[in-house]
Amino acid sequence: MEKKREYNYRIEPRDSDFMKRATLMSLADYILHTAGEDADRGGFGVRDLNMRNASWVLVRMALEVVRMPAEYERIRIATWVSDVTRAMTTRNFEVFGEDGTPAACAVTNWAMMDLSARRMLDLHSLRACDSMTQDFPLPAALPRRLGTPDAEREYEHDVVYSDLDFNCHANSVKYIQWVVDTLPLEVLREKRFARTDINFLREVHYGERLRIFACGADEPLFEIRNGSGEAVCRLAFELV
Amino acid sequence: MEKKREYNYRIEPRDSDFMKRATLMSLADYILHTAGEDADRGGFGVRDLNMRNASWVLVRMALEVVRMPAEYERIRIATWVSDVTRAMTTRNFEVFGEDGTPAACAVTNWAMMDLSARRMLDLHSLRACDSMTQDFPLPAALPRRLGTPDAEREYEHDVVYSDLDFNCHANSVKYIQWVVDTLPLEVLREKRFARTDINFLREVHYGERLRIFACGADEPLFEIRNGSGEAVCRLAFELV
Repeated sequence: MEKKREYNYRIEPRDSDFMKRATLMSLADYILHTAGEDADRGGFGVRDLNMRNASWVLVRMALEVVRMPAEYERIRIATWVSDVTRAMTTRNFEVFGEDGTPAACAVTNWAMMDLSARRMLDLHSLRACDSMTQDFPLPAALPRRLGTPDAEREYEHDVVYSDLDFNCHANSVKYIQWVVDTLPLEVLREKRFARTDINFLREVHYGERLRIFACGADEPLFEIRNGSGEAVCRLAFELV
Repeated sequence: MEKKREYNYRIEPRDSDFMKRATLMSLADYILHTAGEDADRGGFGVRDLNMRNASWVLVRMALEVVRMPAEYERIRIATWVSDVTRAMTTRNFEVFGEDGTPAACAVTNWAMMDLSARRMLDLHSLRACDSMTQDFPLPAALPRRLGTPDAEREYEHDVVYSDLDFNCHANSVKYIQWVVDTLPLEVLREKRFARTDINFLREVHYGERLRIFACGADEPLFEIRNGSGEAVCRLAFELV
């Protein structure tokens, strides 16, 4: 049987928080980096798609953490694509700690966008499409579709230079960072992000003033809205 | 003659900005990471000092950029300590691009702090002190001592979770990020950080509301103040 492809990383000081553990953002970043590397290896990476004026768009993500890796810990991320429909592909991840035991896993959904027309493309038009998938069970439930929270709490964030990625939009990981930064320090110290569901709805641009609405405590739900009041991202945590 | 010790890195997508070049923050981060690795190797790293309840404190930094390394570019950082006085040590860096030509250089001053008494320690008490220095010329002028700017412009930043490092203070690189994020996007697109001088004056803590005062355009000067109005950092750019 075919094997899952694997990638190795080390949790650097800059990936770590004051508890000397990886932050949720840095863990998500290694996972998304792995997606990029593995797609490149398969011949359908961002740089391949850019040549036909297209790009990958992360639509939804579910991330489950069993144990947050420690600073300087070497981690291994296994990844595979399990499904390719016309609209969306599902890429899975298993994160193993230095001792070889599972530390986290993730399930992500991606669409392919035409960069000029700004509309989604049929994934079956990808030449590598047939050889992309591997038949392993999903490591976690598919990302949930999230609703709008009651606005119990409200925060603000201005999109700055350091939020931008190569597309001149805010990087997906930054959405997680803005939301995590609203949590009380006691929660970050005492709780674990047992599961995170994220729906990425719209791009955000330099200089936009975002508002973050939130409700709930142990299972908080967040919605980030742009200046026009449109939801750009929804995010739900299960904190245990 | 003894050689400078060298460390290798690659500019990852998360280190890059919308122009697909390393950000000033990520370049500074690789330089400071190199300081940490090299001090560890010499037996006088943060973890060694922590065992005697002490730590390194970055006091001043000068950073000159000839050419900002590109996304995915492999860089090499050479480092050496040139001087150890009772109060301060000087550590130098040369950054080379993938083609082997100089991309940047830096000169940094560090003090050693007793973590309980919060006061500076005599560096000559370090056992490794004699064998620390190497006799190469400085790659750039020593970091300048900066004055207070006129308050022509003013910005705000709240210290959040993602700003904190393992000490539960804002990471030194974050001071650079907050200031760079105040620059207009056109400046970041068109200019080069030919030289940056930074004076680190005070620690900042979680939840503090900082104010950033600035004056000047091509050679802007910044001061970050805490809630009590004390200067915590001054920073000057030469933009060309």
